[in-house]
Amino acid sequence: MKILIVGSFGIDSIETPFGKAENVVGGSAVYISLAASYFSPSRICGVVGGDFPKEILKLFKEKNIDTCGLEIIENENTFAWKGIYHNDFNTRDTVYTHLNVFENFSPKIPEAYKNSEIICLGNIDPTLQLQVLEQIPNPKFVVCDTMNFWINGKLDEVKKVLTKINVLIINDLEAKELSKENNLFLAAKKILQFGPKILIIKKGENGAILFNGENKFILPAFPIVNVSDPTGAGDCFFGGFVGWLSKTEDFSDKNLRQAIIYANVLASFCVEDFSIRKIQNLTIDEINFRYKEFILYVSLL
Amino acid sequence: MKILIVGSFGIDSIETPFGKAENVVGGSAVYISLAASYFSPSRICGVVGGDFPKEILKLFKEKNIDTCGLEIIENENTFAWKGIYHNDFNTRDTVYTHLNVFENFSPKIPEAYKNSEIICLGNIDPTLQLQVLEQIPNPKFVVCDTMNFWINGKLDEVKKVLTKINVLIINDLEAKELSKENNLFLAAKKILQFGPKILIIKKGENGAILFNGENKFILPAFPIVNVSDPTGAGDCFFGGFVGWLSKTEDFSDKNLRQAIIYANVLASFCVEDFSIRKIQNLTIDEINFRYKEFILYVSLL
Repeated sequence: MKILIVGSFGIDSIETPFGKAENVVGGSAVYISLAASYFSPSRICGVVGGDFPKEILKLFKEKNIDTCGLEIIENENTFAWKGIYHNDFNTRDTVYTHLNVFENFSPKIPEAYKNSEIICLGNIDPTLQLQVLEQIPNPKFVVCDTMNFWINGKLDEVKKVLTKINVLIINDLEAKELSKENNLFLAAKKILQFGPKILIIKKGENGAILFNGENKFILPAFPIVNVSDPTGAGDCFFGGFVGWLSKTEDFSDKNLRQAIIYANVLASFCVEDFSIRKIQNLTIDEINFRYKEFILYVSLL
Repeated sequence: MKILIVGSFGIDSIETPFGKAENVVGGSAVYISLAASYFSPSRICGVVGGDFPKEILKLFKEKNIDTCGLEIIENENTFAWKGIYHNDFNTRDTVYTHLNVFENFSPKIPEAYKNSEIICLGNIDPTLQLQVLEQIPNPKFVVCDTMNFWINGKLDEVKKVLTKINVLIINDLEAKELSKENNLFLAAKKILQFGPKILIIKKGENGAILFNGENKFILPAFPIVNVSDPTGAGDCFFGGFVGWLSKTEDFSDKNLRQAIIYANVLASFCVEDFSIRKIQNLTIDEINFRYKEFILYVSLL
């Protein structure tokens, strides 16, 4: 199935207890599309400045990621962010956020993208997410991310988005904030009433929960010893999930469970190095090996 | 297999965001023996004062818990503790700890207990844990708990205990402290080198990990909507684990995985009410129902 990914493209500077990386590529659409590429080609929509590395545009081509919806504003700069992670990786401080080309971004979906079937709304302003959906009248399957910043600042728009999507993927803190419930299972019940049939709550190193109507699938994270940088892990999770669904064209509960395990596996690779270093150089064998390892870690034998 | 449980018996006062309970029964040996009782009779060893409720002694009898190793010092008071849990249940403040009869406690294992096969060392001073093991020369299977207080204050004794046991059950913070490693998988590797063949790291609402030599089994917690009081959950986990092993007499990796799911289920009941209120009144059908529900939550269908 044809995947369209709308999200951010950025230049990140990152410090973690295990090192740092300056001016490396980041952004939700970058991570989502690279993670999905192991299962399915995709199309990306967003905006970058003239400083966006040309080798990444080349990488997109190699990975069958269509860039005809990627606007390049040559005389401006790409969205830039710098963050410092604390010892436990669960909290981070933002040093700066420069919106740059992103400030006036309004997604324009090219004609050639309008037959996209799986629409991925990366974590951007819900107003922009709605603009995307207005341009694609009958999407088959819409998967959406959001964050506390939008939940606090644009709750009405977030709630409008929720009525138009199939899957919401958020983390545990966002789920609590959106639902005003402290217990994740109560939170999920409330969020599903806002619209989506499927909710995935990510819990970082503690795994994730898939709520598919009345069904629940609870999985731990893949065990990782050498966590270098958590940036992009949630987006790789998103990309692995939609990539697998696109490849299999099967939205059954059983296949959603498989998709979320692939999501988990892609996220596990992402955190092992800074930026896209690890996620751009995987093989499908490595991914499948980790999938099988995961099954051994969670099955009753 | 015959189970011996050595641990604390207490009178607890507990406040949580969802209510409070004054002067209710608590203590590791109480929770472990009650949780195990759904699978196996057991024998308890410890000390209480004259104020320990007579109806609990009656309850032990009803549950096939042998109290001949329970010392009752009529003119003194039972160990007493008061704690207040915070909103997230992950942190608590201790209001008071009165050692009382526990101050001079030294475990005396009755002759009739000396053929015990599974020895459960609840979270007590490692010096006392060693005294127990000295009195039972060839135990088949020793399962042990400890806590930060002993890891910080009596590390040599804790490490000596670790060379004499089969299974260590601790929580994630204790594992990090004991190993001086921040990553749980590195922590586990180190702790297994201290002696035990099997390590279980509990992560509260985020489940648990079983390390059995090179094998790992990672499981989420049973989803609970109405958490009232987490006191005793870890001990019920311990009790469910050893109870199932005692009943099945099977220490294979597959059966250890089943045992830890039962452990999980018993802990899930414990947190739904204060003190032993829920854990004393279960049926095996309720337990098995939750076991089957759990399998649905974690399996690939």
